[in-house]
Amino acid sequence: PDRLVAPSVPAPPVCGSPSPRSTAGSSSTSPRRTPASSSSKSDGGSSSGSESSKDSSRCSTPVLDAERHERLREKMRRRQDSGDRWFSLEFFPPRTANAAVNLISRFDRMAAGGPLFIDVTWHPAGDPGSDKETSSMIIANTAVNYCGLETILHMTCCNQTKDDITGHLQKAKRLGLKNIMALRGDPVGEEWEEEVHGFNHAVDLVKHIRSEFDDYFDICVAGYPKGHPEAESYEADLKYLKEKVLAGADFIITQLFFRSETFLKFMRDCQAIGITCPIIPGIFPIQGYHSLRQLVKLSKLEVPQEIKDVIEPIKDNDAAIRNYGVELAVSMCRELLDSGLVHGLHFYTLNREVATTEVLKRLGIWNEDPRRPLPWAVSAHPKRRVEDVRPIFWASRPKSYIYRTQEWDDFPNGRWGNSSSPAFGELKDYYLFYLKSKSPREELLKMWGEELTGEESVFEVFTCYITGEPNKNGHRVTCMPWNDDPLATETSLLKEQLEKVNRRGILTINSQPNINGKPSTDPIFGWGPSGGYVFQKAYLEFFASSEIVTALLKVLKKYELRVNYHIVNVKGQNITNAPDLQPNAVTWGIFPGREIIQPTVVDPVSFLSWKDEAFALWIEQWAKLYEEESPSRMIIQYIHDNYYLVNLVDNDFPLENCLWQVVDDTFELLNSPPQQ
Amino acid sequence: PDRLVAPSVPAPPVCGSPSPRSTAGSSSTSPRRTPASSSSKSDGGSSSGSESSKDSSRCSTPVLDAERHERLREKMRRRQDSGDRWFSLEFFPPRTANAAVNLISRFDRMAAGGPLFIDVTWHPAGDPGSDKETSSMIIANTAVNYCGLETILHMTCCNQTKDDITGHLQKAKRLGLKNIMALRGDPVGEEWEEEVHGFNHAVDLVKHIRSEFDDYFDICVAGYPKGHPEAESYEADLKYLKEKVLAGADFIITQLFFRSETFLKFMRDCQAIGITCPIIPGIFPIQGYHSLRQLVKLSKLEVPQEIKDVIEPIKDNDAAIRNYGVELAVSMCRELLDSGLVHGLHFYTLNREVATTEVLKRLGIWNEDPRRPLPWAVSAHPKRRVEDVRPIFWASRPKSYIYRTQEWDDFPNGRWGNSSSPAFGELKDYYLFYLKSKSPREELLKMWGEELTGEESVFEVFTCYITGEPNKNGHRVTCMPWNDDPLATETSLLKEQLEKVNRRGILTINSQPNINGKPSTDPIFGWGPSGGYVFQKAYLEFFASSEIVTALLKVLKKYELRVNYHIVNVKGQNITNAPDLQPNAVTWGIFPGREIIQPTVVDPVSFLSWKDEAFALWIEQWAKLYEEESPSRMIIQYIHDNYYLVNLVDNDFPLENCLWQVVDDTFELLNSPPQQ
Repeated sequence: PDRLVAPSVPAPPVCGSPSPRSTAGSSSTSPRRTPASSSSKSDGGSSSGSESSKDSSRCSTPVLDAERHERLREKMRRRQDSGDRWFSLEFFPPRTANAAVNLISRFDRMAAGGPLFIDVTWHPAGDPGSDKETSSMIIANTAVNYCGLETILHMTCCNQTKDDITGHLQKAKRLGLKNIMALRGDPVGEEWEEEVHGFNHAVDLVKHIRSEFDDYFDICVAGYPKGHPEAESYEADLKYLKEKVLAGADFIITQLFFRSETFLKFMRDCQAIGITCPIIPGIFPIQGYHSLRQLVKLSKLEVPQEIKDVIEPIKDNDAAIRNYGVELAVSMCRELLDSGLVHGLHFYTLNREVATTEVLKRLGIWNEDPRRPLPWAVSAHPKRRVEDVRPIFWASRPKSYIYRTQEWDDFPNGRWGNSSSPAFGELKDYYLFYLKSKSPREELLKMWGEELTGEESVFEVFTCYITGEPNKNGHRVTCMPWNDDPLATETSLLKEQLEKVNRRGILTINSQPNINGKPSTDPIFGWGPSGGYVFQKAYLEFFASSEIVTALLKVLKKYELRVNYHIVNVKGQNITNAPDLQPNAVTWGIFPGREIIQPTVVDPVSFLSWKDEAFALWIEQWAKLYEEESPSRMIIQYIHDNYYLVNLVDNDFPLENCLWQVVDDTFELLNSPPQQ
Repeated sequence: PDRLVAPSVPAPPVCGSPSPRSTAGSSSTSPRRTPASSSSKSDGGSSSGSESSKDSSRCSTPVLDAERHERLREKMRRRQDSGDRWFSLEFFPPRTANAAVNLISRFDRMAAGGPLFIDVTWHPAGDPGSDKETSSMIIANTAVNYCGLETILHMTCCNQTKDDITGHLQKAKRLGLKNIMALRGDPVGEEWEEEVHGFNHAVDLVKHIRSEFDDYFDICVAGYPKGHPEAESYEADLKYLKEKVLAGADFIITQLFFRSETFLKFMRDCQAIGITCPIIPGIFPIQGYHSLRQLVKLSKLEVPQEIKDVIEPIKDNDAAIRNYGVELAVSMCRELLDSGLVHGLHFYTLNREVATTEVLKRLGIWNEDPRRPLPWAVSAHPKRRVEDVRPIFWASRPKSYIYRTQEWDDFPNGRWGNSSSPAFGELKDYYLFYLKSKSPREELLKMWGEELTGEESVFEVFTCYITGEPNKNGHRVTCMPWNDDPLATETSLLKEQLEKVNRRGILTINSQPNINGKPSTDPIFGWGPSGGYVFQKAYLEFFASSEIVTALLKVLKKYELRVNYHIVNVKGQNITNAPDLQPNAVTWGIFPGREIIQPTVVDPVSFLSWKDEAFALWIEQWAKLYEEESPSRMIIQYIHDNYYLVNLVDNDFPLENCLWQVVDDTFELLNSPPQQ
């Protein structure tokens, strides 16, 4: 009786189509969903009514992305019901810390295509539950929390104690992981014997998870289209799969196979014995001769003769094999999708990008132009579900923001206010692997200067980063200590003005233009559901010398009613005209049937936490490239010690951005002869 | 160390000037306040710094009106510091329930002028602490909660037990009263003797309040410019006044006087003996011969001969006496204000409006064009301090909304979400005195029809209310069951369209046009601090027959992506396309340096509570005017039983309002020949 909407009313179209960018989410095919307008709502008064409004099941945040609140099995169901096709990606934990940094970048890039989830394998030999940056646990944690990807953590159970396993599961839960792939794992040693009360089979792990964690985790189990190599028979293996499902598994991902008939027969056989949960085919695009051989050996599969016949002659030509592998995968996937039995495809990526991306693009299920649910990439930790406001300062360092707020119990929702604790965790280790620059030291030196000759050399680095033109030594500056990525499209629009001011020592690290109501589907500025309008106040954040700041403050008097400013140095001396330390909303969106979303704010209190980080990056990322006591290092140290960090907001968003005029006025004042 | 802004930085001008409409607040002279830009903020780095951001003293709601969070003594101090002049108004509790209804309307009207506070006297003989609608307690409660006025409740102590007094104070606190005028009161009987441990003097009450309620209440005490009639001497009375201040009084309001010198001498004498708190002169505009005589008798004051000489000859000419009284008060007030010692004036209104309003207007301290802090009148109860979101449904019945939410512990702040309990109190008594129509039954019958002949007669009443033109019998319809006031200016702009649709049976009870960013200072649509922009989505709410609703639902399919609708009948059958029962923000404002404010929403859950009230008003206010079983009553009953209540929101606020087109399409469909 608490439902106020007729059960027959489907999810209205206004929240139907958006899918996240840089996060696991809906696929590009969403717009095909049937609009609600075709439903039977016109027969006045047919709906269920309610007299009482005491108990409401409303969530406290406007749901911009319905899937953000769903568990993986619900997302899968939603896609199946709507006919949207999807894909997922499997990765294994890397061996070295450097490889981990690269894998995380790969997660970010591949997230852009819109996988429904990724999964991370479990390697018992590699201390998979530890806190090492290469462990399965930490890689999965990073995918969920820092890359915003729905993630399945694999877990094997043989040769492990119940306590070990419970410990791993508790840790996974604590880190925000919500999905487990329950596997037996390979017995260690030849003479493995079943333990009486131990975990001898994946089904034991499934039962254990359900008994200890109730319905908290979504559980995935493995299916073997050709039967498990150790199974008595194909039929026995099918029965065992059904046992795993009955024990509580939510869906099945299959072992790789080489012919679509293999999977389709398997699927029909599963259905015949009453397995009704989703069964997702595991796709292995052949990427090289050796990787194929190794995988086949491990999985005890046989490569069909027709494939061998093609591959053997070209076994030394990697490119040819990969092209063939892509062709083969595309045609097999097409057969699977065309069967009508398959909605999602699971890819064994081998931690590589090119082949899988190519297959997905050719299948048309790579999300070419993903909609963003919010202007920033959301984290997938369940406790961050309601988060929809962040300070703008970390716009280019979202992983640092997530890291520094990981201990928060509540996340700002609707309003920054004081509902969120402004107690940011300290960032002591600037070399955390998910914050680490993708470029090695030598490359950074080439970009930022082997030897600095003065503050002007620093101005030049900033200018080259903005213009994209090579520096004196012919190297392009593609990253900065405050931004590990090339300039955002949005920022590129301000290029000309940014170049001008950086040349003169206004060292910009963050900015956005003002926007007075663009459609929420705008390719550059848009975010959130379609049918809405997005707005921005112009924002400019930069470092500048105290001479510039002194002149700027004089100029700002003229703009007192229009421009809000926060100016702070490394010692924390702080000058602001923000009323009562209130946050200023600088990005907001108005959507059909929803409350207003204001996802980025300039928050005076958070700015002081950001200031510590922003100043420290001069030293940690830049000064430390040089020898101690070297002139280059001293120049950066000087800037760190003496410059101010400034942020400016032009509140008059419907008018032309006045911040460039503010800067021009400042330089004019600096250049004018001193008054008497 | 938690202050991030230099103590030398004054409140910035962006929050300086707005003052509330319909609430006690700042006076019209605010704009004179010195802008912050003239302060010493340009000497870069002079401000106090802070490394930590853990403890924040930020309030959780954007402060649109700084005074809303201040206690009365702070407001007084702020006005004194800024040089803004202010006034306050004294009322006594009425004798009858009808008089109470009129007094509340007077509060609403006089609130528009912007008094800093009102006060309500305490009449021991009138059961002043009871729940009667004429008691001092309930009148003060109504002023604070329903009229949003900062209010001082008088309280006398002689002949009362400590428990009685504590009980009254506890009740006052519970009702949201924050200020007490502590008085001795007149002893009952001639032979009054001081009780040893009783309350013999006002100072005993002051001490009691401070000892039992600490600093909760602001305490006012009475000052006697001519000395208290029972005092030994003027000097002894001054000493006694100082005792009251030392015991904890925050400010002083004086007894009336007839010459400015009387007050100015008194004030200097107070200062000479070390009384430093604000002393507010009590102004009594002479309004009639008899009231003057009575007051003089009660207060044992002597009317100066020069006044008697003027009054005696005209004692039967009320108008002449009032004119003289206004002249006299204006010139005395001018002298007081010109002295530079006086910032605020307290008026003994005798519950009348004209003379005091006239004096205030002539002094230029009546707030002619008050700014609204929010589009709706805020309540002054401290627990509603943060409230800044309400459902639009009660826009014309704010007192009902306040009544039905009085038990809430939290009020929506920033977002409606589910943070506010949607558990509305039931409105069983539609004749509560603060909801009661100001018009008597006979007048209502003249407006709404002595005898209805069919649904069309009802359409006509609605149409006449919109057009302002007299009905068939020559009577203007100035109120409706859903709206006790004439049409709002904003609604008048929609007059032409509203008239058209009401004639055809779309019986509108609430509407607003769409607004795409008007300045917050706009005289019709503006609210909140200056320098901002306000926005609205077009809204239309009406009753309509099921034929119309059936056609409307067909038409709405065409507008599915643009228009949100909620359609419900008295039985609670409910049809909506609102996504996930989420509220839709329909009024919002963007201000310098602040988060976004969205003060009105269309909330699907609250709509069902409003629906009960909206349907009941047909019966309670209209049907019951007629005899049971009479045709007129049956017509209203039929509408109540069969019509639907509809609300429509056009989400595309930057485009032309499409709701009129929706209605036109609906009638076109109704008039088109049936298809087949």
